[in-house]
Amino acid sequence: MSNLAAVMNRLGSIEIEEGGEPVPGPGEVVVQVMAVGICGSDVTYFEHGRIGQWVVNGPIILGHEASGVVLECGPEVRRVRPGDRVAIEPGTPCERCTQCRRGDYHLCPDLVFLATPPYDGALIQRLRIAERCVYPLPDSMSFDEGALVEPLSVGLWACRRAGLRPGDDVLVTGAGPIGILAGCAARALGARTVTVVDVSDFRLSIADRLGLRAQRPIDPIERDHDVLLECSSAQEALISGLRRLRPGGRAALVGVPKSELAQLPLAELVPQEVTVALVNRYAHTWPTAIALLASGRVPSEHLVTHHFPLDATAEAFTLPRRNPETLKIVIEPQRLGDPSRK
Amino acid sequence: MSNLAAVMNRLGSIEIEEGGEPVPGPGEVVVQVMAVGICGSDVTYFEHGRIGQWVVNGPIILGHEASGVVLECGPEVRRVRPGDRVAIEPGTPCERCTQCRRGDYHLCPDLVFLATPPYDGALIQRLRIAERCVYPLPDSMSFDEGALVEPLSVGLWACRRAGLRPGDDVLVTGAGPIGILAGCAARALGARTVTVVDVSDFRLSIADRLGLRAQRPIDPIERDHDVLLECSSAQEALISGLRRLRPGGRAALVGVPKSELAQLPLAELVPQEVTVALVNRYAHTWPTAIALLASGRVPSEHLVTHHFPLDATAEAFTLPRRNPETLKIVIEPQRLGDPSRK
Amino acid sequence: MSNLAAVMNRLGSIEIEEGGEPVPGPGEVVVQVMAVGICGSDVTYFEHGRIGQWVVNGPIILGHEASGVVLECGPEVRRVRPGDRVAIEPGTPCERCTQCRRGDYHLCPDLVFLATPPYDGALIQRLRIAERCVYPLPDSMSFDEGALVEPLSVGLWACRRAGLRPGDDVLVTGAGPIGILAGCAARALGARTVTVVDVSDFRLSIADRLGLRAQRPIDPIERDHDVLLECSSAQEALISGLRRLRPGGRAALVGVPKSELAQLPLAELVPQEVTVALVNRYAHTWPTAIALLASGRVPSEHLVTHHFPLDATAEAFTLPRRNPETLKIVIEPQRLGDPSRK
Amino acid sequence: MSNLAAVMNRLGSIEIEEGGEPVPGPGEVVVQVMAVGICGSDVTYFEHGRIGQWVVNGPIILGHEASGVVLECGPEVRRVRPGDRVAIEPGTPCERCTQCRRGDYHLCPDLVFLATPPYDGALIQRLRIAERCVYPLPDSMSFDEGALVEPLSVGLWACRRAGLRPGDDVLVTGAGPIGILAGCAARALGARTVTVVDVSDFRLSIADRLGLRAQRPIDPIERDHDVLLECSSAQEALISGLRRLRPGGRAALVGVPKSELAQLPLAELVPQEVTVALVNRYAHTWPTAIALLASGRVPSEHLVTHHFPLDATAEAFTLPRRNPETLKIVIEPQRLGDPSRK
Repeated sequence: MSNLAAVMNRLGSIEIEEGGEPVPGPGEVVVQVMAVGICGSDVTYFEHGRIGQWVVNGPIILGHEASGVVLECGPEVRRVRPGDRVAIEPGTPCERCTQCRRGDYHLCPDLVFLATPPYDGALIQRLRIAERCVYPLPDSMSFDEGALVEPLSVGLWACRRAGLRPGDDVLVTGAGPIGILAGCAARALGARTVTVVDVSDFRLSIADRLGLRAQRPIDPIERDHDVLLECSSAQEALISGLRRLRPGGRAALVGVPKSELAQLPLAELVPQEVTVALVNRYAHTWPTAIALLASGRVPSEHLVTHHFPLDATAEAFTLPRRNPETLKIVIEPQRLGDPSRK
Repeated sequence: MSNLAAVMNRLGSIEIEEGGEPVPGPGEVVVQVMAVGICGSDVTYFEHGRIGQWVVNGPIILGHEASGVVLECGPEVRRVRPGDRVAIEPGTPCERCTQCRRGDYHLCPDLVFLATPPYDGALIQRLRIAERCVYPLPDSMSFDEGALVEPLSVGLWACRRAGLRPGDDVLVTGAGPIGILAGCAARALGARTVTVVDVSDFRLSIADRLGLRAQRPIDPIERDHDVLLECSSAQEALISGLRRLRPGGRAALVGVPKSELAQLPLAELVPQEVTVALVNRYAHTWPTAIALLASGRVPSEHLVTHHFPLDATAEAFTLPRRNPETLKIVIEPQRLGDPSRK
Repeated sequence: MSNLAAVMNRLGSIEIEEGGEPVPGPGEVVVQVMAVGICGSDVTYFEHGRIGQWVVNGPIILGHEASGVVLECGPEVRRVRPGDRVAIEPGTPCERCTQCRRGDYHLCPDLVFLATPPYDGALIQRLRIAERCVYPLPDSMSFDEGALVEPLSVGLWACRRAGLRPGDDVLVTGAGPIGILAGCAARALGARTVTVVDVSDFRLSIADRLGLRAQRPIDPIERDHDVLLECSSAQEALISGLRRLRPGGRAALVGVPKSELAQLPLAELVPQEVTVALVNRYAHTWPTAIALLASGRVPSEHLVTHHFPLDATAEAFTLPRRNPETLKIVIEPQRLGDPSRK
Repeated sequence: MSNLAAVMNRLGSIEIEEGGEPVPGPGEVVVQVMAVGICGSDVTYFEHGRIGQWVVNGPIILGHEASGVVLECGPEVRRVRPGDRVAIEPGTPCERCTQCRRGDYHLCPDLVFLATPPYDGALIQRLRIAERCVYPLPDSMSFDEGALVEPLSVGLWACRRAGLRPGDDVLVTGAGPIGILAGCAARALGARTVTVVDVSDFRLSIADRLGLRAQRPIDPIERDHDVLLECSSAQEALISGLRRLRPGGRAALVGVPKSELAQLPLAELVPQEVTVALVNRYAHTWPTAIALLASGRVPSEHLVTHHFPLDATAEAFTLPRRNPETLKIVIEPQRLGDPSRK
């Protein structure tokens, strides 16, 4: 039986190749991958071949926002069974280092993470992965929603890194999928208000439809928020977002400026004793994210704007450059040759 | 009875003037000021007339690290009596704003703070201040030690802002009085190790004598600390200090670079999910600082290197420029005309 | 102009009397009271004249779950204006004690609290109260919803005292108004599941209609929850609830057994390192509670089962004993002589 | 080569038997055990054969407060080498359950813990144990001090469970080794004052010599402490200790009354919103405990009152019943036939 994968053999090019038969080892499962969301980091690897310390040095399969159906279980697998519909957490930690033993497994220096070089990702029809990485989905949740668990996890972790407290007034800079889901996460954890700032009317309209306050960048700035969730990676958004924090304000930076040294108006922020927390991944968020999506406390409509079959992966990766009205794009690895669909 | 004060009438100049008779209002006391430590911020006002948003616009009395003896109590004063030896907390908050009501009185936008324009400071013989600002000293503590309670409070607050946990390996950049006291505070709160980095051999020798690990800046850098207490205000120390943090590391910035925009290597710090907390003042620290000094858990020897009488205040302010071997300089407002002493 | 109040002159009896003209002092307002929810503590004072250390020693006006309209503002009032519709926080702290200065104003030993002897409560037509106690309601919120802000605050505070974290599985024992609102609060703060246990089918049906998992007491017990919110005051519920906590489980006790010494199975709970937090009141919860009710994240339907005019207060207080199908009963102080209504 | 062990074959009896040659598996080491402190739990198993859910059902080797020298390392051991002097953490968790993955490995339901039935303990000459359980000791620390790391860890964990904050006034009930070390831990973490209460003048004198405030039980009681560390297991000490807590006070119960149901004055504690945390073991404490002992921040003198050779283990276990002036008793497994020594 073939197991096709979307392989990036060189920058800007993706080809469909045979991925080989996955055999689950002890504590591992094989998942039939049904939906894979494309993340900005996938597009960055596709276009530039690197993100900070991680460099693509050979063929790689991208994609790390995935859901599917358990096909096969290796020995010692106990929590799931073939047929279970699951969302996939992309990181497998060593479980033995200081960070793992403290519960901070996302900081494990030996973390094996889907689609982070040198590790392959989820744009394959059948994926072998540790049992600990798959979480059953309730019947009410679609595979698209299952693929949203990962970006929602980023949002939940950003809230935690920002020390979000019930009743906080939250500012989100950047209304991409991560920004919108971070805003929805904040609301689902008891934020008083959530305001999302972006320059794209299309994205603001989605934020608005999902019940968030949508706002274009404003000037002059007032200190009217307790928490900033920076999701744009734009230097200006970072500075103006920090300036909008109240005394004791806390920022979580999901995006950081790409330059080697970012600029922050520290002297100006000192009287407010602002706190800035960097966000890389997440830990322990899958059950919460699934519960919030399943119960409707985090809405899932309007977020997935396009679907592509596996063999249109390259087309999907270049769509955002051609069409400004995209939000989350999903690849369906079991589909081949079909046209894209909304 | 005269009440002499050291008044800065123009940049770089301090004159002794009559300060007028202080009359304690309800809930206020008058303190005979015995010792006032000179802080870097005092020297900055003396030399440059401003720190960030705070600008000197007229004559001002400097000094905010003070101890003394209660001379007189206004109506409704209950916690202290004339004759009590006290350390003075320099900030009087409004007690009614959101920050005050949450317990974050140091973030009160109407905080009246000694020697922060437009408010006068403690370089006066008899100081009127709110009862809530004076904390009795045990007999075993000297007035010099009483004047160290304020900079130690900065250190304690930095530890709190950094989320210091028992067992953390702590790095302090900058071995001035604040850096050394911050290091001592970290040790007194259960740090596993405390390393202080500076370029001054004199300052490193004091850190060493107080039981801290003293170190010159090193290269290459390893990620070997959990917490950074940045006390140098130097851009390079900030960057190299952040680079020495382990995954999950936390930094408290007591010093920040003077420039409008500071530079931080954010992209490089993302995988470690570093947290950076700014430090301005402190809250609720006086009783703890007094207990740590009184019990010897924070040592007080070697820190005060020079004493000056009130009328040598200007000389005291310029001493650090002339003599690299100064640490904390103390003015004794009740002394006049005497020579300085170690 | 008359200002009628429902006065309890002796146990089990309430009479309508003239309450005198309220004149707002500095920082005070007068509120036209529109809705007052009856709390179990009101009924306990009505029937027994005491709760723990608080003893009724003379005529008292009960009621502390109130909403209304600002009629008049005293000097120095800045946050509200006549005509503002408001929810009322019942406690006025001293703002000067250790607890107040730390932000724990609900622990102020001099807290003046509506309907806690010797202080009168809100069952009066026009109530004088500190400005800090009134919080504007959005137009979309009814006065009934305004009166629910207080019991919802109890629920929010219980979640905080239990250290509720997003994703926790929460058990609530007792499906009275407090239990149900505590469960709704837990869900609005990101709980994964919320199960409410009671013996009343009527109350369980309301919990079910509000989207909570309703359950009768079960046996045998499994350790399947992270957090217990005990809202029944029943000794058995407390013990069985604690037994249902997972390792590291945390309990907040809104209700405690009435006996002088409560019984807890401590030895059995040690291996799980359970934490038990007592709950008395709340702090800083009004804005959050208003936002959660206004946005529908906490539902308000089905909770208020009965309304009574002011002069039927005594009838209202005895209704729960006569009718098991009551939940929250609301008195409308501006209505007189009308019949009760659903 | 013989490997003698002190085996309890039946209640109240201990015999020296051959324990068999230990062979370290992957990730395991063999430690030559040099010092084993006797804990109250060891004595309880010796006398009664059970503690709560743990029941002795066959021969068992007791002892879990141990230090020694690494003799041999199995494959994959990287952190230690033969010859390293080490303190031993007695629990080996599964590293895969929910608790382990969250960093709460002490709550692992499959924890293998020395001297907790059915697992053998450390009263043996050569002990096989997981590498993760051994922590190198600095040369300056004695094996006795190495054996104190375990009870000090209990104290450190109690401080954490009590949410100890720098500046807290701490009350310790019970001046046994655990109570005294818990008090020393609290001081080393920045407590303002530490008061230890006991009825034994001998034990109070040790507490006093170690710099703690020693006090006999007092009456009447004032609410003058922020934190209670209950280390006596006495019902009366628990109740009176809780009554001495300030508003917002927090208690950690290292000891709990032996009865099935403990009695707590909950109704009386509600206005203070007291928090009660149970303490079973500890996690992540070894490096901190070693650093505090090595630096003298926790004193080690006066605590070990008696030493016994391995073949006098039974005599050592019965000594406390015969001699009220014991504190920590240490068995030295490499010694045989020698007399006991101070």
